[in-house]
Amino acid sequence: MSFQNILIEIEKEIGLITNDGKVADYIPELARINPESFAVSIITVDGKDFSLGNNLDFFSLQSITKVFSLTMAYSILGEKLWSRVGVEPSGSAFNSLVQLEYENGIPRNPFINAGALVICDILFDIYNNPEKELLDFTKRISGNSNIDFNLKVAESEKATSYTNKALINLMKSFGNINNDIDNILDLYYKMCSIEMSSYDLANTFLLYANHGVLKSEGERILSVSKTKRINSIMQTCGFYDESGEFAFKVGLPGKSGVGGGIVAVHPNKYSVAVWSPKLNSKGNSLLGMKALELLTTKIEESIF
Amino acid sequence: MSFQNILIEIEKEIGLITNDGKVADYIPELARINPESFAVSIITVDGKDFSLGNNLDFFSLQSITKVFSLTMAYSILGEKLWSRVGVEPSGSAFNSLVQLEYENGIPRNPFINAGALVICDILFDIYNNPEKELLDFTKRISGNSNIDFNLKVAESEKATSYTNKALINLMKSFGNINNDIDNILDLYYKMCSIEMSSYDLANTFLLYANHGVLKSEGERILSVSKTKRINSIMQTCGFYDESGEFAFKVGLPGKSGVGGGIVAVHPNKYSVAVWSPKLNSKGNSLLGMKALELLTTKIEESIF
Amino acid sequence: MSFQNILIEIEKEIGLITNDGKVADYIPELARINPESFAVSIITVDGKDFSLGNNLDFFSLQSITKVFSLTMAYSILGEKLWSRVGVEPSGSAFNSLVQLEYENGIPRNPFINAGALVICDILFDIYNNPEKELLDFTKRISGNSNIDFNLKVAESEKATSYTNKALINLMKSFGNINNDIDNILDLYYKMCSIEMSSYDLANTFLLYANHGVLKSEGERILSVSKTKRINSIMQTCGFYDESGEFAFKVGLPGKSGVGGGIVAVHPNKYSVAVWSPKLNSKGNSLLGMKALELLTTKIEESIF
Amino acid sequence: MSFQNILIEIEKEIGLITNDGKVADYIPELARINPESFAVSIITVDGKDFSLGNNLDFFSLQSITKVFSLTMAYSILGEKLWSRVGVEPSGSAFNSLVQLEYENGIPRNPFINAGALVICDILFDIYNNPEKELLDFTKRISGNSNIDFNLKVAESEKATSYTNKALINLMKSFGNINNDIDNILDLYYKMCSIEMSSYDLANTFLLYANHGVLKSEGERILSVSKTKRINSIMQTCGFYDESGEFAFKVGLPGKSGVGGGIVAVHPNKYSVAVWSPKLNSKGNSLLGMKALELLTTKIEESIF
Repeated sequence: MSFQNILIEIEKEIGLITNDGKVADYIPELARINPESFAVSIITVDGKDFSLGNNLDFFSLQSITKVFSLTMAYSILGEKLWSRVGVEPSGSAFNSLVQLEYENGIPRNPFINAGALVICDILFDIYNNPEKELLDFTKRISGNSNIDFNLKVAESEKATSYTNKALINLMKSFGNINNDIDNILDLYYKMCSIEMSSYDLANTFLLYANHGVLKSEGERILSVSKTKRINSIMQTCGFYDESGEFAFKVGLPGKSGVGGGIVAVHPNKYSVAVWSPKLNSKGNSLLGMKALELLTTKIEESIF
Repeated sequence: MSFQNILIEIEKEIGLITNDGKVADYIPELARINPESFAVSIITVDGKDFSLGNNLDFFSLQSITKVFSLTMAYSILGEKLWSRVGVEPSGSAFNSLVQLEYENGIPRNPFINAGALVICDILFDIYNNPEKELLDFTKRISGNSNIDFNLKVAESEKATSYTNKALINLMKSFGNINNDIDNILDLYYKMCSIEMSSYDLANTFLLYANHGVLKSEGERILSVSKTKRINSIMQTCGFYDESGEFAFKVGLPGKSGVGGGIVAVHPNKYSVAVWSPKLNSKGNSLLGMKALELLTTKIEESIF
Repeated sequence: MSFQNILIEIEKEIGLITNDGKVADYIPELARINPESFAVSIITVDGKDFSLGNNLDFFSLQSITKVFSLTMAYSILGEKLWSRVGVEPSGSAFNSLVQLEYENGIPRNPFINAGALVICDILFDIYNNPEKELLDFTKRISGNSNIDFNLKVAESEKATSYTNKALINLMKSFGNINNDIDNILDLYYKMCSIEMSSYDLANTFLLYANHGVLKSEGERILSVSKTKRINSIMQTCGFYDESGEFAFKVGLPGKSGVGGGIVAVHPNKYSVAVWSPKLNSKGNSLLGMKALELLTTKIEESIF
Repeated sequence: MSFQNILIEIEKEIGLITNDGKVADYIPELARINPESFAVSIITVDGKDFSLGNNLDFFSLQSITKVFSLTMAYSILGEKLWSRVGVEPSGSAFNSLVQLEYENGIPRNPFINAGALVICDILFDIYNNPEKELLDFTKRISGNSNIDFNLKVAESEKATSYTNKALINLMKSFGNINNDIDNILDLYYKMCSIEMSSYDLANTFLLYANHGVLKSEGERILSVSKTKRINSIMQTCGFYDESGEFAFKVGLPGKSGVGGGIVAVHPNKYSVAVWSPKLNSKGNSLLGMKALELLTTKIEESIF
């Protein structure tokens, strides 16, 4: 069965599901999105692409962008990076301070909020203007120069997110934050506010399916080994406290965001992005999870 | 480079490492093993095998056997199994009672001790003589009818392991244990005491590399989907609090045991078993971890 | 106002309260008690006594008996006792394993279940027949030779209490239990099953109001200093996770049990016992707490 | 034996103790103090006072001031106060975020940092200029109009204390902080920086020994009942994770600060303040604890 036919089947089956998920409403700007939006885009490493639904609408990537900052920091610092943040699943809710306190301010992995804040701190260690560098890098790997921050979303989030302020201050108390807290939070929320379409997102993550080489340029962005390692972190830590569930049901490395996007890659084969804003109780797109489960079931192929 | 040549290189490089690991000494019987033992065995799905070192010596599989009992319970109960045990990484030491208490007696996954005890309880729900069934199943999938429990090890462990007694009583207090506690512990320790060689172990796990079909018989033991799902649990939960690290460095689903064995599979390609009794601080074979990291680095192939 | 008049006022005010508490139903034998039973007894150090309600009915002392075993162990071991158990409030529910795991098997204080189990273990270290010694001691300090274990209650509790089995096995795994687990649990449940009336209970605790001298005999049972220290532990740890609340509202050292009894002492002045079987959400007698709050408010005297 | 003779004996015995405590060095300004300073002052409710050592030297009260802000907030809000903060001991280190996270942003008691921050927030709810009100109140109850903030200490602490920023942001995320975080922290650190002598401190706490009436004015500051309740909170929560130990060994309600001060009261009898800057591992003055233990042992009187 072709990808296009599989997508059509998925759309049909998804349509039968009662979606009792909830749009993330703690971010007022995100709550305005059409909750019924739905998009899927697949791009293969040999250059074919398949899409359906609102695949050109921009949506807020949120935590998915943590993969971009990690890629930048890891490509420059190499293995030294892991003295500042771990690679183990967290085993508890994504913003828990408990583990951080027991483990002396070293976040379990770069995809929980605490870990992503440390990575933003590292970008300030590395770059004079990390905000510009991050946006340029995202434009480059997505192949879309129109991609931008959504400053309204960034400000809306920054104004209300006391938990992240608690996390970063706690890490600072353990000596694991070097730069100005306010600047780091500013970068973090701008990063989370980046918007693109499901097509752009699949295109961006082709990099991770293609062992670190950017298709559009033929340039290597990340070594084979580092790409595999980022994929493995996506596999074990990409879905908050539902990473095991995603590995179990979908069987691909991936990353989700509270904007309702999920992206996954089958190394050497394809990348796939889905978007549906209503989230399950763990903060992952309810239909997005289901669509990807149907995808690997129908393809009869996962990394396992 | 051929597998055989890769193994020779690995043996050479491993020989240069100062092994400051420690043999598990809380089990007196295990402490008697020669700490310098070392073996690797690889078996491919197309029927080739490669070994070096003490690849015919039997060693205690310990936690690796949790994959066998899970396979038996899952193949019979199907997805109902997951109401009794989760599929998420635990994010804390392998025998922690904390998480179990906060999560009402449902263990995070079938590979932490609490989860494996629940699986043993389920085997009593299913079988009249689970001990015989488990041993017969292990003989069958390993292709070696000489495989047996080591009753001395089982008794030695059962006599001293108060933590597991605490775990199973705690789960019983939450209503997640149905059968006699003493009988379940008896089965659990017998299971852990199963011994085989690295060759047998690689042969056993070929099942998981071969999508559930037993090579020797040409018979399907487990559906494709269930095999993949067990592989995914091995990936996210197979190495206690070092599962992320193993995914990161080795990039294959696998399972370790405090007897010093580690087994891993590359689906569709091969299974590999290593044995070296000295453990690192997380309870995984120090040289075993290193050998497998070298293997996937030299092959330049992992699932990621 | 005389004690007798105060008691009459308390009875009147208590009668107006809607008691939405629940009798402890996890112990089948306890669930049979008349939930509307109510008794108060006050005995002063200068020999007067005042009672009302069912003050001669026997009820199950449960955790209140932990004071007796502590008194026995402390009087013999002295300050060495505190290497086995602490004197700090626990800050969490009375049967939590969490703290025990983080603090290496040393219970926070002798009144949480774990601590009381350690004290029972110590009685086996000290005595050949701790069961007989404990009962004899209780008869002696209560002045009532008819006091006895309720074996039905003891067996009923022992059969179902997996949490305590988990606790004692966990402590054994840390090396903080010396004697046979089954024997210790047997003693523990027999101790908890001791029954007496509110009059007997007030009479028993006169010892702690009278600085360690047994009124009836004129004999010193415990030194002045040790008596004060036991009183201080009752003050900070006597009411599970409501010890602060009791100190705040009543202002006397005391101890409660899930049988619905509460006993408190005003050193140098009086002891008071109340009994009302319905418990609040923290496991303390709802009307008992209220009655004692009314008592110290009306007397206008507490230790603070 | 007279108080003066008891003090002389205490001084002698204290002199023989090897003090391996450490001055709080996380506050640079505090680290400059003479570590060998030692003072004791006792003032009785019938108007006698006894002192020795550096009893007129000012030192930093730190957490002892939490009793002042609690007194102000409690006297105005009454029992409504307890919807914002509890009265239970915390059972863990004084700045732990763990419990706060599990208990939805409600601190366990007003003497842990989180609780004291909530009380400062409440002072902003009540007063237009809480800083002035707090200082005026402290001057009034101490009877010393020269008492002041030490702004250097306040700034030094505020600049480095990321843990408190984490705590207050975490509570804000749960909705338990109403006012500007920066203003609250400002007030908190100024409050902690208040300095007075051991004589002034004993004089201040005479209020709590005297059931809420200010001796110097003959005016009631706090009702009898509220005074007793504050005393009970000092008893159960006044010494971080060593409150049980203090109740056990000293047997009086009290409060300590990392400046090395400890104050305690025997209701109806006397207040006592000690000062010695070197702290034990729990953050309480090592010699201060010892001196108070000797005091109640020699007087042969505690509240128990």
